[in-house]
Amino acid sequence: MKKIVLLMMMALAVFSLCAEGTRENFEAKDPNTESGVKYVFMFIGDGMSSPEINAAQVYNGSNTPGLIAIEPLTFTQFPVVGIQYTQDATSFCPDSASTATSLSSGYKTHSGVIGLGIDKSTQGETIAEKLKREKDWKIGVVSSVTINHATPAAYYAHVVSRNSYYDIGLQMAESGFDYFAGGLVNKAEKEGEKSIYEVLKDNGYLVTNDRDTILSLNNKSGKVYAYTSTPQDSGSLTYRIDRKEGELSLADYVRKGIDVLYNENGFFLMCEGGKIDWAGHANDALANIGDTLDLDDAVKVAFDFALQHPSETLIIVTGDHETGGMTIGYAATGYNTAFDILRNQKCSYVAFDSMINAEKQNGTYTFDRLMEIVNDNFGLWYGENGTDSALALNDYEYNKLKKAYEDDLSGNANTGYEESSRLYGGYNAVSVTLTHIINNKAGIGWTSFSHTGLPVPVYAYGVGSEVFSGSYDNTEVAKKLFALCDVE
Amino acid sequence: MKKIVLLMMMALAVFSLCAEGTRENFEAKDPNTESGVKYVFMFIGDGMSSPEINAAQVYNGSNTPGLIAIEPLTFTQFPVVGIQYTQDATSFCPDSASTATSLSSGYKTHSGVIGLGIDKSTQGETIAEKLKREKDWKIGVVSSVTINHATPAAYYAHVVSRNSYYDIGLQMAESGFDYFAGGLVNKAEKEGEKSIYEVLKDNGYLVTNDRDTILSLNNKSGKVYAYTSTPQDSGSLTYRIDRKEGELSLADYVRKGIDVLYNENGFFLMCEGGKIDWAGHANDALANIGDTLDLDDAVKVAFDFALQHPSETLIIVTGDHETGGMTIGYAATGYNTAFDILRNQKCSYVAFDSMINAEKQNGTYTFDRLMEIVNDNFGLWYGENGTDSALALNDYEYNKLKKAYEDDLSGNANTGYEESSRLYGGYNAVSVTLTHIINNKAGIGWTSFSHTGLPVPVYAYGVGSEVFSGSYDNTEVAKKLFALCDVE
Repeated sequence: MKKIVLLMMMALAVFSLCAEGTRENFEAKDPNTESGVKYVFMFIGDGMSSPEINAAQVYNGSNTPGLIAIEPLTFTQFPVVGIQYTQDATSFCPDSASTATSLSSGYKTHSGVIGLGIDKSTQGETIAEKLKREKDWKIGVVSSVTINHATPAAYYAHVVSRNSYYDIGLQMAESGFDYFAGGLVNKAEKEGEKSIYEVLKDNGYLVTNDRDTILSLNNKSGKVYAYTSTPQDSGSLTYRIDRKEGELSLADYVRKGIDVLYNENGFFLMCEGGKIDWAGHANDALANIGDTLDLDDAVKVAFDFALQHPSETLIIVTGDHETGGMTIGYAATGYNTAFDILRNQKCSYVAFDSMINAEKQNGTYTFDRLMEIVNDNFGLWYGENGTDSALALNDYEYNKLKKAYEDDLSGNANTGYEESSRLYGGYNAVSVTLTHIINNKAGIGWTSFSHTGLPVPVYAYGVGSEVFSGSYDNTEVAKKLFALCDVE
Repeated sequence: MKKIVLLMMMALAVFSLCAEGTRENFEAKDPNTESGVKYVFMFIGDGMSSPEINAAQVYNGSNTPGLIAIEPLTFTQFPVVGIQYTQDATSFCPDSASTATSLSSGYKTHSGVIGLGIDKSTQGETIAEKLKREKDWKIGVVSSVTINHATPAAYYAHVVSRNSYYDIGLQMAESGFDYFAGGLVNKAEKEGEKSIYEVLKDNGYLVTNDRDTILSLNNKSGKVYAYTSTPQDSGSLTYRIDRKEGELSLADYVRKGIDVLYNENGFFLMCEGGKIDWAGHANDALANIGDTLDLDDAVKVAFDFALQHPSETLIIVTGDHETGGMTIGYAATGYNTAFDILRNQKCSYVAFDSMINAEKQNGTYTFDRLMEIVNDNFGLWYGENGTDSALALNDYEYNKLKKAYEDDLSGNANTGYEESSRLYGGYNAVSVTLTHIINNKAGIGWTSFSHTGLPVPVYAYGVGSEVFSGSYDNTEVAKKLFALCDVE
């Protein structure tokens, strides 16, 4: 039903486009681009490719035999699809700095480098910088992770190393961009220097993490940096599956972004779902799925805007690379999946790590105590402590969990032996073993704790979207945007 | 360079299309479809989705740091891309019978069912059958696996079980289709019944596995079934990586198919790369990559034809589902890949299985002897028996291989313990452990020995190709073809 309504809305939009989108109409509106586009949304699911997208669709779909069906996301219903290749100058398993640079600026660079060429010194200009300088469009950058993390930084910063967080923060403050929102500034403080938060204020930004202030922002608020007052790991927004009532979501920050950026001239808004990647690294499928759904909710906000501005709006949704080597299917489950099992998981691996640490600090961390909190938070049980057979640990799984518990306590988890790198990948051995177990039971596999070389789909809707069809290098995404927006 | 030439050829073809493809021209040619299409190629890579396609592109590309690049296949350069969802009525990890039925006939059915509805009795009609009956087009079906295997069968047969090979063979003989080619007929003999090969002859088919006869076929040869005289496992074409000089490839069978089918009225040719799937099941990346390249070579033949017939030809290339949960990236190799390592693999797992079996039969199969043939065929070595450090087995890998050797001999490989299903998946424990080791060293992971739920890209070129843009259910592929070909 939801799908039909959405399709009808799309058809209506296309109709409006045909009706209004003639050359005369564009000229009547005094557009500043040949294509007529003046509102561009760029959504990047970090670590999001087809496995992540379809996992979210399977999770929301019907798992009833004979009625197997996915529930499509908003953006997967966009009429134009492309495929981008993600390798960077360094690797077929590239990092977010280089890939976001390709997406924002149209050239290849090395893993770890932001906004500089393959020689690590030539400085290009991003689509956001070009639009600001050449067209005086308003620019927004939203991320669920820290606002000076690689992907958002690739729209305003030029540094040899993505780890130069303070320098990136300075460049953010000097960007002149109109709206930053989402996560905190990572490593905002530097000895003998002003906090980045202060530098932002000095540069005329309204800097706020107050919910009411944020919700009252509009296009007369001036330059804004709005960040969460309830940060989770490393200053990011909380995972959707951990979010408490009243916390602002990615969709809220995009909605507010439109309020702040809206003007007759045009705006460009990049929004990153950054924790899809983090959950992929940690091999936590439910956290990953939740944040993909969160990104889609943010896309919905843009789509609603596009329906109001059909002849002027372009929405691109893509990823920068895949993370984790996620698969819908696993050796031990064969041709079966059971995504409903994931509904027994009550929190992300991050929240579960905190529980383990709390038990350790309380001196109450025993294997029996662990099995209690496992049962409370994953529904899993062993022996005679449960009844739902789908959630029963078999001996193989139980022994794996017990070994992880011991490896964690002994310090063997990440250095003890060759196989540990395959088993735990630097994460808490117990948490990652638990997500592996519940993911595998659901029929989800993972092969890596890093990024992979899977191509990434590009979904496009609106003015000029048809140029995003076909297969191309990730640098083409930026080049196509340059052409559509008439920037050099 | 190759890429530029191909792009120029494509541009030329599009130009020709614009120049010739007007309504008058179509009418002057007395087309039998509204769209003007009269030559349709449908390529299906069984078990082929984005990981398999890009693995082939990475393998053929440049792995030199700073010059990392893929080498695009022919079909990935097609201008239109879509994404199809593959789940069937039974599972999100569907089988080839149901998915090929959706692709050929436009409806969902259960895993294992061919050409019948979800009730397992309602009989639909395939695109090939419709075109034969309504338009009198000539029809060809080519496969690298047995010609009555699920995917080819889904274009001409209607049976409750894909395992009813003899019945499928009978329906093949009764199809009236003009050209069958590639693998043998599986289980062609049935007690008290005629061989399928005889039934085909009775039905007017020229049945031949003689190379010269096959190469002399043309559009006056009548109905033909041309099959390989050098079958590999289960009567299939040999893997590309095992092929001897002079053996006909999938491209040869497609080229000959065009010779046989070409006529002024129209033709439909389905060509399956069936062993991409088999290599995926066995987790043998090099065999998988080889057969994806072989499918692309077959596509090239069709593409050359399309350049000669630009206003009349449509080429679709897609898969039915992904197999194996292949990933470009692996936990132990992190952000690195080293696909060049695969060049040390000299044969497929099938050929290696035969070597092991020969040693067993000779009574010469010891672990030391195994290590010799491992070194000869995979380049891998342990201890002091080699120099190339990239191919040295570490203790973890060596112990894994030794355990596989012991599990194989003891019979524990597939029933002995819980983890065996994850380790060996029913394959020869030694062969699959070897491909896992060399794949993992190259930076390739696998999560399953079955099919997975990854969506599959659709690549389209030629007349009407634009309707294959966007994301859709696999049933839409058939429905779009019905509409383009004006069949009901």
